[in-house]
Amino acid sequence: MSEQAVLRADNVRLSEDGKSVVIMDQTWLPNETVYLTLHKAEELYDAIYQLRVRGAPAIGIFAAYALYVLSLQSKETTFDAFYQEFARNRDYLNTSRPTAVNLSAMLFRMDKVALTHRGEGVPAVLSALKQEAISIQQEDITMCRNISAYGLTLIKDGDGILTHCNAGPLATSLYGTGLGTLFLAKEKGYHCKVYVDETRPLLQGARLTAYELYNAGIDCTLICDNMASLVMGQGKIQACFVGCDRVARNGDTANKIGTSGVAVLAKHYGIPFYVFCPSSTIDFSIESGDQIIIEERKPGEIKEMFFQKPVALPEIQCYNPAFDVTPHDLITAIITEQGICRAPYTESFQAVFEEKMK
Amino acid sequence: MSEQAVLRADNVRLSEDGKSVVIMDQTWLPNETVYLTLHKAEELYDAIYQLRVRGAPAIGIFAAYALYVLSLQSKETTFDAFYQEFARNRDYLNTSRPTAVNLSAMLFRMDKVALTHRGEGVPAVLSALKQEAISIQQEDITMCRNISAYGLTLIKDGDGILTHCNAGPLATSLYGTGLGTLFLAKEKGYHCKVYVDETRPLLQGARLTAYELYNAGIDCTLICDNMASLVMGQGKIQACFVGCDRVARNGDTANKIGTSGVAVLAKHYGIPFYVFCPSSTIDFSIESGDQIIIEERKPGEIKEMFFQKPVALPEIQCYNPAFDVTPHDLITAIITEQGICRAPYTESFQAVFEEKMK
Repeated sequence: MSEQAVLRADNVRLSEDGKSVVIMDQTWLPNETVYLTLHKAEELYDAIYQLRVRGAPAIGIFAAYALYVLSLQSKETTFDAFYQEFARNRDYLNTSRPTAVNLSAMLFRMDKVALTHRGEGVPAVLSALKQEAISIQQEDITMCRNISAYGLTLIKDGDGILTHCNAGPLATSLYGTGLGTLFLAKEKGYHCKVYVDETRPLLQGARLTAYELYNAGIDCTLICDNMASLVMGQGKIQACFVGCDRVARNGDTANKIGTSGVAVLAKHYGIPFYVFCPSSTIDFSIESGDQIIIEERKPGEIKEMFFQKPVALPEIQCYNPAFDVTPHDLITAIITEQGICRAPYTESFQAVFEEKMK
Repeated sequence: MSEQAVLRADNVRLSEDGKSVVIMDQTWLPNETVYLTLHKAEELYDAIYQLRVRGAPAIGIFAAYALYVLSLQSKETTFDAFYQEFARNRDYLNTSRPTAVNLSAMLFRMDKVALTHRGEGVPAVLSALKQEAISIQQEDITMCRNISAYGLTLIKDGDGILTHCNAGPLATSLYGTGLGTLFLAKEKGYHCKVYVDETRPLLQGARLTAYELYNAGIDCTLICDNMASLVMGQGKIQACFVGCDRVARNGDTANKIGTSGVAVLAKHYGIPFYVFCPSSTIDFSIESGDQIIIEERKPGEIKEMFFQKPVALPEIQCYNPAFDVTPHDLITAIITEQGICRAPYTESFQAVFEEKMK
């Protein structure tokens, strides 16, 4: 498959007139392709908060364009007055979501550019801001290419790969990070089989990852998050691929809720667990994950099912086992109405249910 | 809270005229309380397949009543002709779901009763079948009382408990198995804090467990399945309580999909993992879990969100963290666009990003 087919530079971009940011609204996927043209501060903020644009790299790119677009609207002519407004917009956008470092990191890059050009007049500052936002996006495209090539060295033809959340084209400006490797593998003629965690509560796996993989002709199977243990135990998974939102200096990695659970399962089943991490997502200012703020969102995302339409393309293959088997060595005790049994269970069952065991 | 308040003998019962089985249709919960009066073979079968009645003990009780009700409809007067029809109904019901042993085990008990009374004429057989079904239900009530008392010895006041799926009153005829202990603990004045896995795809945790616990005044918080790792890592969980559908002689336990994942997480975080298992759920005929058939259900349960109404009572408290942190020691490698980093990450980041680490 061609690079063009997975390229999504239209995912986040400046509008034709250069005064707005255009995004594909990811909340409508996979049922509809809806583009939004945004220029008001509140709608730009909401696009991030509501996950209309999401994925750490895409959020960073979007925030840079958003800050530029808001800066364009300034009526101030002196740098100091302009910068006061700029800083307000920067801080406002920065509070839309706390966990992904790209948001604050890219806003910080824009800030540095504004300050660097302070002596050149507001129009020159605006021009530099626009160029910086474009650079951020271009670097992301190069990043996707390189990270995917590195990822390819970690798998082989026929491997089963488990993914969590979405680290694909929609989360970046090209191939994606974790999924990029899978697109490259497909190009190389590999036949990988990808298991896609649906990723509750907002179902980025079902709605976005399965959509992207299916459209690229990659063999993928959608599962509920709680099925990962079963498919790993069945030997179907040779590697786990996830993206990340903020990585500390020691490697502790914040990513979509559930990622740590996948990592624990992978360790238990002896499967490598790979984090795909653009350098822009490493927060060199923090020592460990303890310093990462975990965003807490509204209860309604769990309780109210606002996905009234199907959450995956009708063509998406699913695996829907209703049960799994927990091996006895993971069970602390089995409590029966006739007593508490502990390992070895064959013997303790014998003691309690002597008659039935005959 | 009184036993009466959690007693749900009306969950599955014979109708007033004794010719039908009445169930509370669990697929309508938590939004509506709908009772169904069933007597046709297909609707009895469907009640199990569609999870209108569910939970291994409740399925066993229901199947016994269902087989009795179908037997009543026989027009045969000789035992052999009657039994031929009986066996057909028994086998038909037995194929409604494969995993829970109670279904086949209780149908087998009914079968044995029919054969035992074969010489006494069809009316006597029918009377014995009715009595056996009632006994099965009464034994279940006693089982709930005893298993809950045993469970109570495993926790202490203030403990945080994680549950998966539903092993409460709705799954049995009294307290439930796993949840029974929590009702008893509440009676004893314990203040436990229960974390309820929503249990995708059919959301038995959100729809049933949270509903039962909330109505009993027990402090409970609904989470998505993939959040269990985070709450365990935060030290909020002192024990995991689950039910089971079929347990092999060696203790291997089939239960709702996702249970093995909870067990792996519990082991990783050093938390005891308890299986609540009525002796009727032990399959003494199989050596290990390898011999347990895992039911596979329709893809639509994952892809199509047929829960158009809220899936939990509006009053239910939720915890909705959007991210978690994966500790570096669970990560095999971090792939960046500038190279593949391996533990220790502080050093490997240093090597790759020397400049940024300054």
